[in-house]
Amino acid sequence: MSDFNFEDHSHRRYNPFTGDWLQVSPHRGKRPWQGQEEDTAEAQKPTYDEKCYLCPGNTRINGEKNPDYNGAYVFQNDFGALTSDIPQGEMSEGEFFKAKSERGICKVICFSPRHDLTIPELDVEAITKVVELWKKEYQELGSKDFINHVQIFENKGPVMGCSNPHPHGQIWAQESIPVEPAKKQVKFGEYYQKYGRSMVLDYVYEELKKGERILFENEYFVGLVPFWAVWPFEAMIAPKTHIASLADMDEGQMAALADAYRQLAIMYDNMFKVSFPYSAGIHQAPTDGQNHPEWDLHMVFYPPLLRSATVKKFMVGYEMLANPQRDITAESAVKILKGQPKEHYKV
Amino acid sequence: MSDFNFEDHSHRRYNPFTGDWLQVSPHRGKRPWQGQEEDTAEAQKPTYDEKCYLCPGNTRINGEKNPDYNGAYVFQNDFGALTSDIPQGEMSEGEFFKAKSERGICKVICFSPRHDLTIPELDVEAITKVVELWKKEYQELGSKDFINHVQIFENKGPVMGCSNPHPHGQIWAQESIPVEPAKKQVKFGEYYQKYGRSMVLDYVYEELKKGERILFENEYFVGLVPFWAVWPFEAMIAPKTHIASLADMDEGQMAALADAYRQLAIMYDNMFKVSFPYSAGIHQAPTDGQNHPEWDLHMVFYPPLLRSATVKKFMVGYEMLANPQRDITAESAVKILKGQPKEHYKV
Ligand SMILES: O=P(O)(O)O[C@H]1O[C@H](CO)[C@@H](O)[C@H](O)[C@H]1O
Ligand SMILES: O=P(O)(O)O[C@H]1O[C@H](CO)[C@@H](O)[C@H](O)[C@H]1O
Repeated sequence: MSDFNFEDHSHRRYNPFTGDWLQVSPHRGKRPWQGQEEDTAEAQKPTYDEKCYLCPGNTRINGEKNPDYNGAYVFQNDFGALTSDIPQGEMSEGEFFKAKSERGICKVICFSPRHDLTIPELDVEAITKVVELWKKEYQELGSKDFINHVQIFENKGPVMGCSNPHPHGQIWAQESIPVEPAKKQVKFGEYYQKYGRSMVLDYVYEELKKGERILFENEYFVGLVPFWAVWPFEAMIAPKTHIASLADMDEGQMAALADAYRQLAIMYDNMFKVSFPYSAGIHQAPTDGQNHPEWDLHMVFYPPLLRSATVKKFMVGYEMLANPQRDITAESAVKILKGQPKEHYKV
Repeated sequence: MSDFNFEDHSHRRYNPFTGDWLQVSPHRGKRPWQGQEEDTAEAQKPTYDEKCYLCPGNTRINGEKNPDYNGAYVFQNDFGALTSDIPQGEMSEGEFFKAKSERGICKVICFSPRHDLTIPELDVEAITKVVELWKKEYQELGSKDFINHVQIFENKGPVMGCSNPHPHGQIWAQESIPVEPAKKQVKFGEYYQKYGRSMVLDYVYEELKKGERILFENEYFVGLVPFWAVWPFEAMIAPKTHIASLADMDEGQMAALADAYRQLAIMYDNMFKVSFPYSAGIHQAPTDGQNHPEWDLHMVFYPPLLRSATVKKFMVGYEMLANPQRDITAESAVKILKGQPKEHYKV
């Protein structure tokens, strides 16, 4: 293998979950940065904000009033990108003009009544309430005839387009299987056909054996940086035993997922001593009424920061037009993340 | 088709160039925005900046001195993500760990000696010089044995991660065909097999017949918003006759491409009276030594702004995890763009 090594030389890595390739340019961290810096200075947030649409007891923009909730609270998005009451229609004209109506339901889920507490600042019990609500929503939404996919996600921080500072996530449930989960559906299916086993579980097993990309484990879950991670500090939380979807999870597993979510979020915040922005969410079995032994639920985290609290990785020209590209290897990201204290820096 | 209509109801559209689907949520423009706003205020730039690495006569970070160039000027990127002098290596371990070394060459191309002039502010003659240099580079780089793909692109504006304000673009040439062009390669190939014609040209012909998504035309090129555009004001410049790559282009065609590039960039700047940020670039035939009758060169433009000079579209949680999604239809974007004056607002 000559003198080639992954820490110094430009290379491509294959993502077996999607079939895509990634460009890695490890030497590139050295280039000078004269570009845009993010404003991540944090105003001390109040525990309750009377102008916030998500705080308990407040009135939302459509006139509805939030109850005095404690724990996690879910409601229908007042400006959902998907709605269930549209007429159905389809267009199919030759090779170029194909479109069809898409029904769905969008919800918002407040993580806590506290306006100022993010996931890494909540305790495992409070986060378990969020996971329980996810499960309930996945089951209820998924049981509807016209809902074949439920996407649960969180945009954390203004850099990630989060339009309200009250800690919350979202659920977009819809008719079609979206592009990203559909790619995984194909690859997991092929793998299951070939080996009669789940690709996610086999991958987790291989990574546990190697150890070098593992961030932490608990009874049911592992936190790791996938070999093919795209974002500088991308990570994944994946199960050690078969869990096709939230619907399969018992109390112990839900608490373990909450614990893993919290552990990872603390590592993130501690790295640059800032409320670390990311988009995160769950990929799991579709709710299309089929059995999905090929699926195992996993959470993915896509954080944009690269060098510091203010310099992010821009996925722009080359990345948009040609190929996702990263500047540090997955293995060096692991080293930095693992070096963080287990306690949140604010404590 | 009941009462369904594309202007009001959520739907999916198919992109025949890549095979991907897009989520359109036209009603969503109405949601309130309390999220991050971009700083697009522009300092008046000097015509020459002694601290700029790209201005004529200045010394770059690696000690090299730029010549006193006029017109367009190209040089090898001092911090290229791809280099040609790495040892070769490969890893293939089971289903999960596949990687290989990737050689390449990265270049920077200054559009003009003037530090302060962007594409919409240059005249057609000056932009033609850029196109001529693109052609020369595409041919020279492409003729190397280990270069099978040449990606030419521009990141415009700090919002697009542009790390130097001097107007410039980039060229990343490499061994492999990157993910996005590879998808088009497949779809164009299938289409050519089926019809013996080019998918791009057939699509342009259909759009010209319909007229509703056309922004402008000149002798050789058309500016249009594709039916499946993802970004709010995404656009495409495509040829009316067969041009597989820059290598095929004569003087008249290069001037026409320069004119189209300028027309579109002026529309963009005029819309919000700001130097409009985008990532743009050329998709064209790979330089793999094969004949590519299935390919026609086209330029794509991905601009992030949505509502104003300061509010952009965030491609985050749902978009990263599930499916690209847009909030206004391609057709309404066309109406806004076509309503702009033909002269740059600064003139
Ligand atoms: O090459 P630059 O301008 O330093 O960097 C910019 O463009 C590159 C190519 O799209 C990206 O990889 C970088 O993230 C971006 O900041
Ligand atoms: O739903 P929000 O928080 O208003 O909006 C945010 O998340 C959505 C889902 O990822 C994106 O479509 C928006 O661009 C983003 O600003």
